[in-house]
Amino acid sequence: MSQEHFFQRHQDTLGQALNAINTRSYWAAYPENPSPRAYGETAAADGEAAFNAHLGKAFQLEMPGITGEIAGEVSPYGIEMGVSYPKVDFDQLIPAMKQEVKAWRDAGPDVRAGICLEILERLNKRSFEVAHAVMHTSGQGFMMAFQAGGPHAQDRGLEAVAYGYRAMKEVPENATWTKPQGKHDPLVMNKNFHIVPRGVAVVVGCSTFPTWNTYPGLFASLVTGNPVIVKPHPASVLPAAISVQVAQEVLKEAGFAPHIVSMVADTLDAPVTKELATHKDVKVIDFTGSSFFGNWLERNATQAQVFTEKAGVNTVIIDSVHDIKAVARNLAFTLSLYSGQMCTTTQAIYIPRDGIKTADGQMSFDDVAQALSVATSKFLGDNDRACMVLGAIQAPATVARIKECESLGEVVLASEKREHAQFPNAEVHTPLILKVDASDIETYSEERFGPVSFLIATDSTAHSMELANQVISEKGAITLGVYSTDEEVLDQAEELAMDAKVALSVNLDGGVFVNQSAAYSDFHATGGNPAANASLTDTAFVARRFVVVQSRRHA
Amino acid sequence: MSQEHFFQRHQDTLGQALNAINTRSYWAAYPENPSPRAYGETAAADGEAAFNAHLGKAFQLEMPGITGEIAGEVSPYGIEMGVSYPKVDFDQLIPAMKQEVKAWRDAGPDVRAGICLEILERLNKRSFEVAHAVMHTSGQGFMMAFQAGGPHAQDRGLEAVAYGYRAMKEVPENATWTKPQGKHDPLVMNKNFHIVPRGVAVVVGCSTFPTWNTYPGLFASLVTGNPVIVKPHPASVLPAAISVQVAQEVLKEAGFAPHIVSMVADTLDAPVTKELATHKDVKVIDFTGSSFFGNWLERNATQAQVFTEKAGVNTVIIDSVHDIKAVARNLAFTLSLYSGQMCTTTQAIYIPRDGIKTADGQMSFDDVAQALSVATSKFLGDNDRACMVLGAIQAPATVARIKECESLGEVVLASEKREHAQFPNAEVHTPLILKVDASDIETYSEERFGPVSFLIATDSTAHSMELANQVISEKGAITLGVYSTDEEVLDQAEELAMDAKVALSVNLDGGVFVNQSAAYSDFHATGGNPAANASLTDTAFVARRFVVVQSRRHA
Repeated sequence: MSQEHFFQRHQDTLGQALNAINTRSYWAAYPENPSPRAYGETAAADGEAAFNAHLGKAFQLEMPGITGEIAGEVSPYGIEMGVSYPKVDFDQLIPAMKQEVKAWRDAGPDVRAGICLEILERLNKRSFEVAHAVMHTSGQGFMMAFQAGGPHAQDRGLEAVAYGYRAMKEVPENATWTKPQGKHDPLVMNKNFHIVPRGVAVVVGCSTFPTWNTYPGLFASLVTGNPVIVKPHPASVLPAAISVQVAQEVLKEAGFAPHIVSMVADTLDAPVTKELATHKDVKVIDFTGSSFFGNWLERNATQAQVFTEKAGVNTVIIDSVHDIKAVARNLAFTLSLYSGQMCTTTQAIYIPRDGIKTADGQMSFDDVAQALSVATSKFLGDNDRACMVLGAIQAPATVARIKECESLGEVVLASEKREHAQFPNAEVHTPLILKVDASDIETYSEERFGPVSFLIATDSTAHSMELANQVISEKGAITLGVYSTDEEVLDQAEELAMDAKVALSVNLDGGVFVNQSAAYSDFHATGGNPAANASLTDTAFVARRFVVVQSRRHA
Repeated sequence: MSQEHFFQRHQDTLGQALNAINTRSYWAAYPENPSPRAYGETAAADGEAAFNAHLGKAFQLEMPGITGEIAGEVSPYGIEMGVSYPKVDFDQLIPAMKQEVKAWRDAGPDVRAGICLEILERLNKRSFEVAHAVMHTSGQGFMMAFQAGGPHAQDRGLEAVAYGYRAMKEVPENATWTKPQGKHDPLVMNKNFHIVPRGVAVVVGCSTFPTWNTYPGLFASLVTGNPVIVKPHPASVLPAAISVQVAQEVLKEAGFAPHIVSMVADTLDAPVTKELATHKDVKVIDFTGSSFFGNWLERNATQAQVFTEKAGVNTVIIDSVHDIKAVARNLAFTLSLYSGQMCTTTQAIYIPRDGIKTADGQMSFDDVAQALSVATSKFLGDNDRACMVLGAIQAPATVARIKECESLGEVVLASEKREHAQFPNAEVHTPLILKVDASDIETYSEERFGPVSFLIATDSTAHSMELANQVISEKGAITLGVYSTDEEVLDQAEELAMDAKVALSVNLDGGVFVNQSAAYSDFHATGGNPAANASLTDTAFVARRFVVVQSRRHA
């Protein structure tokens, strides 16, 4: 097969993706609906069977330096996983990957983009299998695991390919430079401009979004010519392993070494990320996880370009609303979805202590709190639906945190443990909502990962904005929601968003949620506050993954 | 005057600059020839008079926080400078600049680009005045001070404006996102995407190229919305001060606070850069200077985006030549120009110890050395021309270094002190050329800033390449020149350049020199080896100076 084969095959899709990032209007390459019409009549059953076939087996990947096996994943739904993965000596793997830099570099942007798109398309075909893998490692409900772990993650990957491709293509491959010399002959130089990757890249995944948060870095590095090591979170290896396997398959078919995409798995007991991330030949790092470790990487992996997404205190400010019920329903979904284990879930909700204006007149703080509490309870009233939306808690520490947080304020809505009909051992917990005072800033300004949120009584909306600005500037945030019927307040919110460098959602009361972002259109994090030093995806996310090396000679 | 006035006026020039960066073929906005036809009959005399009028005076700038005056420049040509500059309390200045972020941000890319281009055009009109200021601070000869300090620096500034402008314009200002919902009405969101600057920027200048190395960072930060503090090297303040004054004039005329561009001067005895660079509100830093301080900034100014150009060991590899005389003449100019005080001047010249092939047969190492020595002596034979090309040595440490280096190898060409006809106190020194063995790697792999170069006897061209790769990868380099008549060797050189991430010039034997780079066409540094973490100018140089903050709401 010619190396250009995949590029020719996917050129049209790439063109649409490039158009999407130029306009940032709605587009998606991969259907988000897990319907037989989109994925085939047998896709659901085949995907589940493929997932089950992994259980209790040794997962195979092609990499130099395999020295044994490791395992250790625990399904938050309580099923037996028992998948083992290759244990790799990365002092053997990294030199072997370095040897492939030249071939992958010389393939050029078109061939690399074609291969990336083929990988994404094959991943799309395996979305059901990946969905089960995401579900049983992250704890996400199946529908979310399918969408966020499958097509949405794939679209984020394709978005990164498009940004990388555009940035590379903006550098001309060559130029003739003709400088007039008055009456003399001009100076004429022929110049070549080579796109040169930084070197070996590492993507450090997280336990909660093992594909969605891995694909942007993986594909941004890969399309720009860097071989990539995926270092999954030890609790969520299988979705990464399947992704790496697919990448290796495509690379091999196209005549490249499969280990241009490799995986270094580790365990909670014997983590290798620090050592891997500071390896002298690792030149690009993408990380999603704690602020503590993200900041450590930024300061210590100085040999690499480091892109981080860390923790923050996502925020909603309620000033005034038309219809409190619609607002409460919208927020109830946000607080419930995946038990708040999203890096975009609201934690701090600022409400004036004197209450808010609604279309039906003034509403007290406690009535707003009550509306939110009732909406959440109601939304989670049907246990089957609740379990689907809440998913399971990924980490025991998060389960423990719910309990620990109960004493941090006045309980507006207590968290309940729920029974999952299908998975009796699943840790399913409903949101805990607490009321606190604006003065309790130490309490609500610390990230409490999981289903914990604070309704914060402030002096006024101006006070809410001031506090939000302070907390976001100091602790970071990826999302800010503001509810107001007053255009002047909304203008102030726009200023606040620009000042704190956080994405703003205004008056969400329907089918769009503050914690969701759409590939090609919504920038996920700005890279301008402590929650992240990078954005998914902008030009800054791709431009530093390669350098331009020129050569010139007289024509 | 409308804020758009300058944009309308310069839109055409900006369009040409955008075209130039897209093609990277030859273009220049500002004439490099200091001729009366280009600059006007009286420009030379007026410029000199304007320069003289600064001497012995207090230079005025408009900034909050001025607490006194400082002075201390010493002309390398020995004239009395006696210019004093405002001493500023940057704990007053920075908050005042922060207050202007909103106005400058809201001006938008067009207005900001228009103002940048007006500043550059006015600087161009003052090129003679700036040339004298550059000459008497950096020690450059007048012609170089005019070209590199005037039009070439202005073109590098405009190039940065064009890159910043293009990057901002690639983000759509708004979008309508319409997501189909099957049989239901689609979800429709209106989205705004704001270009938001990082904050206050600082440009730390160097003593040798006070404008050329300052304008890219200054204009890249300014066009992307960041107010900028220029922190000149204490030895080269006047060129920066004139530049800031021009910027302030234009800002005021356009209705902005002049201190959106400010200057913080310091002295060698009381440097302020560390404190300034780690100020919590400084969010972007551009630096040109020593590796020691550049690395310190990269590691310590973690609150900021840091762009550095540092030291390196620029390299030439001679494998084979057609005409050794042409090659030697070309290299003689490179080694002589501004006494090697360029960040691009060759230091390490690798030659096989068994000699090289030429069109006239094999030539021994010593004959190659001799040819280079003779060409340099001949080129500098005429003392007036020599003084013009060599300029004066900027720093006493560099003068001392020439002497110190004499014992590092076998002297092929001794450095001579020359008398400058016009400036008897000028420190004018010809190049020192030493012969060393490949094994003396500790000697030639350390940067020896100034007119010192090493002819390194290697086992073969392959050995030369291996050593060059090692030294450049470890110590950095901005330029690599390779001479060979063998296309296979040139292919290897291309590989070496990509591997060490350094710009390559092949077989320069005419009017183009390895130490010169042309705006819009040659990338100055790649950002991929230790000589610099950034390139003048690529997309990575501008993309991190702003973030995108979006807002979305239901249509």
